[in-house]
Amino acid sequence: MSDRDDHVPGGYEVEISEGRLDVRAGGVEGVVNALTTLRQLLPANAWRRGAAPEGGWSVPCGIVADRPAYAWRGAMLDVARHFFPKRTVLRYIDLLAAHRFNRLHLHLADDQGWRVESRRHPRLHRVGSWRPSTRLGPDGVADGTPHGGHYTLDDLAEMAAYARSRGIEIVPEIDVPGHTSALRAAYPELGEPGRDQAVLDTVWAGGSSISPTRPVVAFLQEVLEEILDATRAPYVHLGGDECDMSWWASDPVIAAEMAEHGYTDVKQMHGHFLRSLGGFLAGLGVRMVVWDEAFVTGGVLDDTIVMAWRGHRVAERAAASHDVVRTPLFPTYFNFDQSGLPQERRSEGGPITLGDVAAFSPAPGEWPAERRARVLGGQFQIWTEWVPAERHLDYLAFPRACALAEVLWSGEILDLPEFEARLAGHLERLDALGVEYRPLDGPHPWQAGGTGVWRRAQSGRIEETRKWVESISHEP
Amino acid sequence: MSDRDDHVPGGYEVEISEGRLDVRAGGVEGVVNALTTLRQLLPANAWRRGAAPEGGWSVPCGIVADRPAYAWRGAMLDVARHFFPKRTVLRYIDLLAAHRFNRLHLHLADDQGWRVESRRHPRLHRVGSWRPSTRLGPDGVADGTPHGGHYTLDDLAEMAAYARSRGIEIVPEIDVPGHTSALRAAYPELGEPGRDQAVLDTVWAGGSSISPTRPVVAFLQEVLEEILDATRAPYVHLGGDECDMSWWASDPVIAAEMAEHGYTDVKQMHGHFLRSLGGFLAGLGVRMVVWDEAFVTGGVLDDTIVMAWRGHRVAERAAASHDVVRTPLFPTYFNFDQSGLPQERRSEGGPITLGDVAAFSPAPGEWPAERRARVLGGQFQIWTEWVPAERHLDYLAFPRACALAEVLWSGEILDLPEFEARLAGHLERLDALGVEYRPLDGPHPWQAGGTGVWRRAQSGRIEETRKWVESISHEP
Repeated sequence: MSDRDDHVPGGYEVEISEGRLDVRAGGVEGVVNALTTLRQLLPANAWRRGAAPEGGWSVPCGIVADRPAYAWRGAMLDVARHFFPKRTVLRYIDLLAAHRFNRLHLHLADDQGWRVESRRHPRLHRVGSWRPSTRLGPDGVADGTPHGGHYTLDDLAEMAAYARSRGIEIVPEIDVPGHTSALRAAYPELGEPGRDQAVLDTVWAGGSSISPTRPVVAFLQEVLEEILDATRAPYVHLGGDECDMSWWASDPVIAAEMAEHGYTDVKQMHGHFLRSLGGFLAGLGVRMVVWDEAFVTGGVLDDTIVMAWRGHRVAERAAASHDVVRTPLFPTYFNFDQSGLPQERRSEGGPITLGDVAAFSPAPGEWPAERRARVLGGQFQIWTEWVPAERHLDYLAFPRACALAEVLWSGEILDLPEFEARLAGHLERLDALGVEYRPLDGPHPWQAGGTGVWRRAQSGRIEETRKWVESISHEP
Repeated sequence: MSDRDDHVPGGYEVEISEGRLDVRAGGVEGVVNALTTLRQLLPANAWRRGAAPEGGWSVPCGIVADRPAYAWRGAMLDVARHFFPKRTVLRYIDLLAAHRFNRLHLHLADDQGWRVESRRHPRLHRVGSWRPSTRLGPDGVADGTPHGGHYTLDDLAEMAAYARSRGIEIVPEIDVPGHTSALRAAYPELGEPGRDQAVLDTVWAGGSSISPTRPVVAFLQEVLEEILDATRAPYVHLGGDECDMSWWASDPVIAAEMAEHGYTDVKQMHGHFLRSLGGFLAGLGVRMVVWDEAFVTGGVLDDTIVMAWRGHRVAERAAASHDVVRTPLFPTYFNFDQSGLPQERRSEGGPITLGDVAAFSPAPGEWPAERRARVLGGQFQIWTEWVPAERHLDYLAFPRACALAEVLWSGEILDLPEFEARLAGHLERLDALGVEYRPLDGPHPWQAGGTGVWRRAQSGRIEETRKWVESISHEP
């Protein structure tokens, strides 16, 4: 990937000589990466939080100079389907920094929960941040246990500052205009008149959408302003995926605004709505990010970053005109199983193996050079419909995140056995860090699905997943 | 409590003058307490992990000199019934240090799990550290979900070092000779011949006991040696509570050893067994700690510390001859409800309110002075049969731990309204720290029990608890 290296920040040089250590880097990100390298030169126990051994550690003299292949080395954590407290996010940031990731995309709002305080519109967090029950398991029975929580704006500011000092930018996502059941539970007037909406208690689809009209744009601008005041984020993700527009054409208020703009198709309104919010962000010096559906409906500005989740075709199409972050379901959705073993805990589908991730090439060689050049990088996703707790999050993220980190830093993994040999040593660092990763030969007994709600439904599952991946990859 | 102060470590003096700060203390514990005081002088946001504001913070000039009433200011966390990963323990240590606690008692082994690696006897952690299912909820239905985990010896060393640098000693507990189902699942030969035993999948009693004979003592000495190598702990808790000795008298090997010692009652053997282990610890310069049953059977040495959980009578009796740490079920078992509100999440019983904790006097004025003088301090307990996750742990611990911290530091809380007024301000610090405490007026909607396995069984519960507390407090 040597054609890419020159423009990418995050590089560094470490020079170790007797009694002296020099670190050269262009910014915080490079310094953090340099310190990570230094720590990697120490024994695995140097990743613990206990005291250093008497006499300290020593490192060999030498020079390490390195730089990343890709500028966007990301992780998406869905804190909407299940809420993860601030402490989990702060620790996740530490783990990401240790793998030289530099973006933490927080999916803050979805049908199942709204996860950030709004002082201007407080029903968002008071009403939207919890549900009385969750449907889990193969039978989808409601568990009757309340679930919820949200970050205060002070929490969000803290997480952003904490991440930044570790070379990581938080990318907050408010997913609109679809996936908005929690928002609508708080403010029903923003959606389809006469349709009630509760925070969804189920992991399945069927969420509602909001109206794409001016008052809704104004409402969301106020919310985004609060989030930006707290985070100073240079990127904001507006979602734009999987939106039910079926009621828009027959809604008189939406129809009136469409007529005003001369639109004949509700998809034009979807694009217009997102461009309006994107323009607002641009005025504040913030770049918008969207899922690929928004690219398809025209919901992008020239400098919008497109996250292509539906496969290679839409990614390559977007890269003809836009910067692209590669987030294909296969192999970057780490909420899918890691193997075909029957004892894996129930998840979304799968498997997506360590080897699948290692084989991923963000900018495939068969693409035209100018499209490859618009690939900023890639990102792994953990959607948390089936991930209620941090222990399971660890299991799904690692060691697959190690493979993606290697791909994004080095461009690609050319020698899988060589990578796997290094990974074996790296797992000792994860042990020291207390990461509850999936062992290479399968889950620990206590990480398995068992016979209850987490049992894995076997029949036809792998085939179903293959068909789903296939079908979305042929969408426009 | 001015008659107690002079002997107690942990005191400090902080002197703030223009451009200068002096801290005087006799050791790490005092320095940590001094730094806590300094942080308390800053705004609540100083307890966050984000960057300090530009221009920093300022503190008023002045002198603070303070010292604790009690030397043992403890917290017991049961990591056996539910396992809590290392990260949770490290964070718990931070929270304890912020409240000037100086002991973290880790209940590492019980019927439901063995939680520490043994290199000499690896079946302990391989077999004993997980169960295939857990019975929860009012109906006690097995959930079919595996649960488990353990600390490596390196993890334990890290936690002990981390705690020590924050003025806290970890007190590891290996509970013997009762509560040993997990141990027996790993090494059946240590218990009743011919009786199978699995790691218990239930929160209810019915666990098995091990044999009190020489080979078992030798086995446990090897285990304790590993734990002491890792932790360098000055105190080790040997449990000694709730032991089923019914099979001991009819076991020929036990009977033979009893005859050799001239014992006629199995209780003498219980005492002998614990004294043997205690003597081994003493040889390593380690002080033994036990629950009060062991005091009653004679399982104590002269310098053994007795934790009295069954109420005031046994505590006062033990204090006639031994150092005592007050751990009465009422009001120091924080796994009990915090109120009588119907929306509280199901727990062990209760309620034990913030006011109950605030009214606790570790060394009651009506005791003779020489017995009061033998009260080292107190400790709150969180038994985790009903506490599967860190979020619920936060809820149960705080703010009751704040009240106990105040009692143990100041001796008693004389002015409850004044304490509650200060607590209101302190809750802002807990918010900044990300502690999911119980709000004073009741749980957040997402902290409530709901209608599923966590629903609270109402009828007769408070009365049952009262009777239980009453009955154990009349045991010998």
